Amino acid sequence: MITPVAPARTASVGTVETRYLDLAEPAQLDCGRKLGPIRVAYETYGALSPERDNVILVCHALSGDAHAAGLAKEPSGESTRDGFGAADRDGTAGRGLGWWDGMIGPGKAFDTDRYFVIATNLLGGCRGSTGPSSIDPATGRPYGADFPVITVADMVRTQRAFLDALGIERLAAVAGGSLGGMQALEWAVLFPEQVDAVVVIASTHALHPQGLAWNAIARDAIMRDPAWQGGHYYGTGRAPDGGMGVGRMVGHVTYLSAPALDDKFGRRLQFADDVRYTITEPEFEVENYLRHQADSFVRRFDANTYLYLSRALTYFDLGRQYGGGSLVRALEGMSARTLLIAFSSDWLYPPSASEEIEDALRTLGKPVEFHLIEAPYGHDCFLLEEARQTPIIRQFLAHDRAGSRRRGKRPS
Amino acid sequence: MITPVAPARTASVGTVETRYLDLAEPAQLDCGRKLGPIRVAYETYGALSPERDNVILVCHALSGDAHAAGLAKEPSGESTRDGFGAADRDGTAGRGLGWWDGMIGPGKAFDTDRYFVIATNLLGGCRGSTGPSSIDPATGRPYGADFPVITVADMVRTQRAFLDALGIERLAAVAGGSLGGMQALEWAVLFPEQVDAVVVIASTHALHPQGLAWNAIARDAIMRDPAWQGGHYYGTGRAPDGGMGVGRMVGHVTYLSAPALDDKFGRRLQFADDVRYTITEPEFEVENYLRHQADSFVRRFDANTYLYLSRALTYFDLGRQYGGGSLVRALEGMSARTLLIAFSSDWLYPPSASEEIEDALRTLGKPVEFHLIEAPYGHDCFLLEEARQTPIIRQFLAHDRAGSRRRGKRPS
Repeated sequence: MITPVAPARTASVGTVETRYLDLAEPAQLDCGRKLGPIRVAYETYGALSPERDNVILVCHALSGDAHAAGLAKEPSGESTRDGFGAADRDGTAGRGLGWWDGMIGPGKAFDTDRYFVIATNLLGGCRGSTGPSSIDPATGRPYGADFPVITVADMVRTQRAFLDALGIERLAAVAGGSLGGMQALEWAVLFPEQVDAVVVIASTHALHPQGLAWNAIARDAIMRDPAWQGGHYYGTGRAPDGGMGVGRMVGHVTYLSAPALDDKFGRRLQFADDVRYTITEPEFEVENYLRHQADSFVRRFDANTYLYLSRALTYFDLGRQYGGGSLVRALEGMSARTLLIAFSSDWLYPPSASEEIEDALRTLGKPVEFHLIEAPYGHDCFLLEEARQTPIIRQFLAHDRAGSRRRGKRPS
Repeated sequence: MITPVAPARTASVGTVETRYLDLAEPAQLDCGRKLGPIRVAYETYGALSPERDNVILVCHALSGDAHAAGLAKEPSGESTRDGFGAADRDGTAGRGLGWWDGMIGPGKAFDTDRYFVIATNLLGGCRGSTGPSSIDPATGRPYGADFPVITVADMVRTQRAFLDALGIERLAAVAGGSLGGMQALEWAVLFPEQVDAVVVIASTHALHPQGLAWNAIARDAIMRDPAWQGGHYYGTGRAPDGGMGVGRMVGHVTYLSAPALDDKFGRRLQFADDVRYTITEPEFEVENYLRHQADSFVRRFDANTYLYLSRALTYFDLGRQYGGGSLVRALEGMSARTLLIAFSSDWLYPPSASEEIEDALRTLGKPVEFHLIEAPYGHDCFLLEEARQTPIIRQFLAHDRAGSRRRGKRPS
């Protein structure tokens, strides 16, 4: 199943434009509060079939946006692919290229010759959809920390309302990596009759405690920055860039594997052949790289959105939410075919979590495939290993329901 | 070799007092600067033999001090064991108990019935030895960021000058974990004729790039805190507690293993059976634990010392320093018997680094033993796994030189 072929970036969806849709009804959130109005930023690729039965919803991870494929009509000057770990570290991403451009397009994993692919910016986001940096109609000022605490289920119900507004009832598939994979699973559980298949990549049914810890540290780094100002920094001329930079560096290291860092940087010094005896300046290449990543991230991302999405992904726990602690019970009502992909070197979302989902679905007799891809780049593989994911995803989507029950190949 | 017996905390060295010694000569540092006067805080346990041939120098890790064993005469109110990862997480450490009390004492690994054990606070420290928080005689104010950048070799040369002042020429052994193990190795390379044996635990000859990254993040967290004030925060009423707390949390997670966090906390919620929908407050037990660790650390540790010692341990690279890039060449002059201990779950100082040292010494025909201990607690094992380390260390120290060449047992 693992074929070392070149990425299938054979064709592009071309130039695309992010559009916006305002939902008519306020949302009833898990936390008990109502939120509205809600705006959803989105892009679409490919053509909707007359039967409206070829829709794939693609869900982004913590730092992504609606620009999943193609070239942005008005490039922000910085590739959104930079939003994800080290995905752009080899300079392969062009300016304004969508974060999953290698996976979405004619002949690609999510084939726009066949499917109508939709990507939205999440509820709570900072790239066009309503989030903490949006104006609170009650005050006329940005919500800031008054934005309600949201969950992955809230994000998914917002996507449901958005698709209703577009007149789309059923989804041929929901797909995503990391937090995006959580949304796909949440879709399958919340709306079992409306999702034919889910593609869950480098994700989990509940983040493990070390993952909770990394997220808590990143959030604390933001909140301990005095410029955060209790979450009401908008319009003050100050933002918690220092703290968010630190949080981003933590995240960045967790997205990569230790061997990937060895391979990329080793202990190479930044300048000359010897150390310069400095505390404040980078000495090693990896130190300089992390600072660059932090600086580039704070220029394009809102710290409060980071806090809210990070909190949402730590809350996500299908067993707790729907099964009284049991994952099997939580998935009982699922009917979508499930494709799980994990990467051997991903220690933030380790393959064991995907195995647990597979085991639960298999116990329930539900159709599931799990593919473990041996790859060295850590969690970021879901953005980098396009060539190996593509045949797996294409084959899975092409399958009829009956044929899908066979077990996917799992390297031992 | 691995025997699951109870810790050998059979007896204590009793109540001890930290003493101080001022070195007569300023130190010539690797960075080119001179530093003086230098004060060294130290403790001793056991009795010096008339031949002065039973001295073991114990070196501490990043956040330790000279109080390695026994009960502090004037307890600071907080165990110094808290300085190391989660060593006190089970409440086993009493108030004011030394950070390696389980390893130093009558009948223990470093047996004070036989050896005269000396522990010093490192150059650059904040627990009595000269460091960034000490008064710069040139200005009458604390050095702050004007303190010279130091290396592990500088620390070791300071220890050498300190022992000279005590009238101690030779060391029966130098021992330490983590940064302490680096000092032991540096001793063996810098002063081959003056060290009979080194005990290097959970350490390395050069930190791997991911380790460089974690250290860079912790330092950046401190330096991005506005209260750091370019390193001159003393006497201003403000200190970079927020940033150092974040750095400490990062360190803390790297000292533990993911399974240890699973085991200790799981995804247990802090209050009640459900989430409370809060961004600012801890929801999961592991979140609360990390905050507690951060708060307790900032109360007792100086941020600049953290910066300087962290920088020193990232610089440490025996191959670069002494071998033109070759570890084998760097160790050519060593004559001390070497005991290496690593822990299977330690991903910050992984066993592979100890193996590389073993391989280099074996290539050179030098006496070396390597023991890999299967234990789940990560890097903190060197403070927690006293029972398993004790027989290995006692046997190693008791060995004659000839008998030591046999290979230590290594679980496959």
